Amino acid sequence: MRKLAPALLLALAGCASAPVAPPQTAAPPPPVQAEADKPPAGMQYLYGSAEAAALSIQAYNALIAAVRTNLATSRPPTSAILAPEGTTAPSCAGKPLAAVFDMDETAVLNLGFEYNDARSGKGYDPALWARWEQTGADKVAAVPGAKAAFETLRAMNITPIINTNRGAASAEKTTEALAFAGLGDFRHGETLFLKGDVDGKSGKDGRRMAIAAKWCVVALGGDQLGDFTDALAGAPAARRAAVTAEPYLSYWGHRWFVLPNPVYGTGLGSGWDDTFPADKRWADPAAQGVK
Amino acid sequence: MRKLAPALLLALAGCASAPVAPPQTAAPPPPVQAEADKPPAGMQYLYGSAEAAALSIQAYNALIAAVRTNLATSRPPTSAILAPEGTTAPSCAGKPLAAVFDMDETAVLNLGFEYNDARSGKGYDPALWARWEQTGADKVAAVPGAKAAFETLRAMNITPIINTNRGAASAEKTTEALAFAGLGDFRHGETLFLKGDVDGKSGKDGRRMAIAAKWCVVALGGDQLGDFTDALAGAPAARRAAVTAEPYLSYWGHRWFVLPNPVYGTGLGSGWDDTFPADKRWADPAAQGVK
Repeated sequence: MRKLAPALLLALAGCASAPVAPPQTAAPPPPVQAEADKPPAGMQYLYGSAEAAALSIQAYNALIAAVRTNLATSRPPTSAILAPEGTTAPSCAGKPLAAVFDMDETAVLNLGFEYNDARSGKGYDPALWARWEQTGADKVAAVPGAKAAFETLRAMNITPIINTNRGAASAEKTTEALAFAGLGDFRHGETLFLKGDVDGKSGKDGRRMAIAAKWCVVALGGDQLGDFTDALAGAPAARRAAVTAEPYLSYWGHRWFVLPNPVYGTGLGSGWDDTFPADKRWADPAAQGVK
Repeated sequence: MRKLAPALLLALAGCASAPVAPPQTAAPPPPVQAEADKPPAGMQYLYGSAEAAALSIQAYNALIAAVRTNLATSRPPTSAILAPEGTTAPSCAGKPLAAVFDMDETAVLNLGFEYNDARSGKGYDPALWARWEQTGADKVAAVPGAKAAFETLRAMNITPIINTNRGAASAEKTTEALAFAGLGDFRHGETLFLKGDVDGKSGKDGRRMAIAAKWCVVALGGDQLGDFTDALAGAPAARRAAVTAEPYLSYWGHRWFVLPNPVYGTGLGSGWDDTFPADKRWADPAAQGVK
């Protein structure tokens, strides 16, 4: 049995309903802070952990299962495309089947870029990222589960299509990176859509609607909300509230499939008030006060 | 169009196959590093982002869908329990149905504890966590998707059971926290298993097998590998390789359901070599060298 810390004994002494038996060595394990001799915690998790690999495989396994259910129960299949406000939802009738994926941290892990980022500590720079697009094709790996899922989709006669904000000028190197990762062959303008294509915007709704004009899109995959719809911009708390309510609530795991990314992007940036609601803040009763 | 950085022009000049058109402003957005005026990045992601909420809802939605498929296609249902080596897998025949979940960062978000942790910067301390178990029951929230999933499970006559490493001495306060989060009523020794129960170990296989002796467990949910099996200990790279191969590969999203947690636990800790394979390291061709 572990020796109780003096502060705990004081706390228990002051607590009328304190249990007689001491607490066990408790879960959860210690939070791991950034350490000088290790990559940033988010990279440890995304690129180094079994848990994040399991999350990714789970997303792809759930996608395949959900698409099978969709095809078995709906004629024509239910489209995964959410039409922008004021536009008409595309019909699936008579169209070949497709599933649309973001590329970075959805289909491929940018191990080379993030290693350089972590080692250099310089932060994000669009020109640096452009050089990565041009020279990093053999320094990526498939997201766990992506290769098998893409193969299964093709065997089901469902075409994987990539909709990425990599630049249109990098089309050739982007197809090289996808092929290197084992994800198969993609053709610019047919099964690969880049920033600069269609309407030239970084928002992906225009490209999604162009794809849906030709294809019946039965699933969307991505690591950021913009990979699913452009409608969910705004502050973190508002975005979080939106995705936990209908209609989005029912989309996750059924037609929209999210991959983990605590390293960069729209999943980061919330401040104290957006992250910790005022009524959920706790102060250690044994402490003199919280710093 | 953005002006090209001089370093990029140099890089392109030295590259025989450089494209004529300049790269577009590129994805992904800048990595967000820890900022003094914001919580740690992992907390921003897990507690503040729409993307992590979507991952959690997706896990719970996929769980319900998979359990429906299991019940519709298998008699008796397929058990989610992996028997420890040398033991016999428990049969589902003739038993009532259950789904077993970890508690912390699986069923409830420990917002109060993590807020205090981030503000105090003191790091993990078992005595501090024990005080949290005793006094923090109203400073938690349900993980997005958990409340609806537990309700749906109960409506399907499947009993949610919590298997947590909170201490057995905190049974009363733990049931209070679960009820406060809206997750329903749990009874210690029946539908709530804590550290100290059964074999007294922090490894959960003993408690899982005790539960499976009475129940047909159709799904497991957790944020760490130990919530599914004790067999996957070891170094990060070995654990990651294991979960991406059979038999585990097929479990994720079908009988095992993982929730995101880049804040603490066994998903963190990988070093440079475990996180970034040697053959996936990239150096910026325009840089003098990587620090």
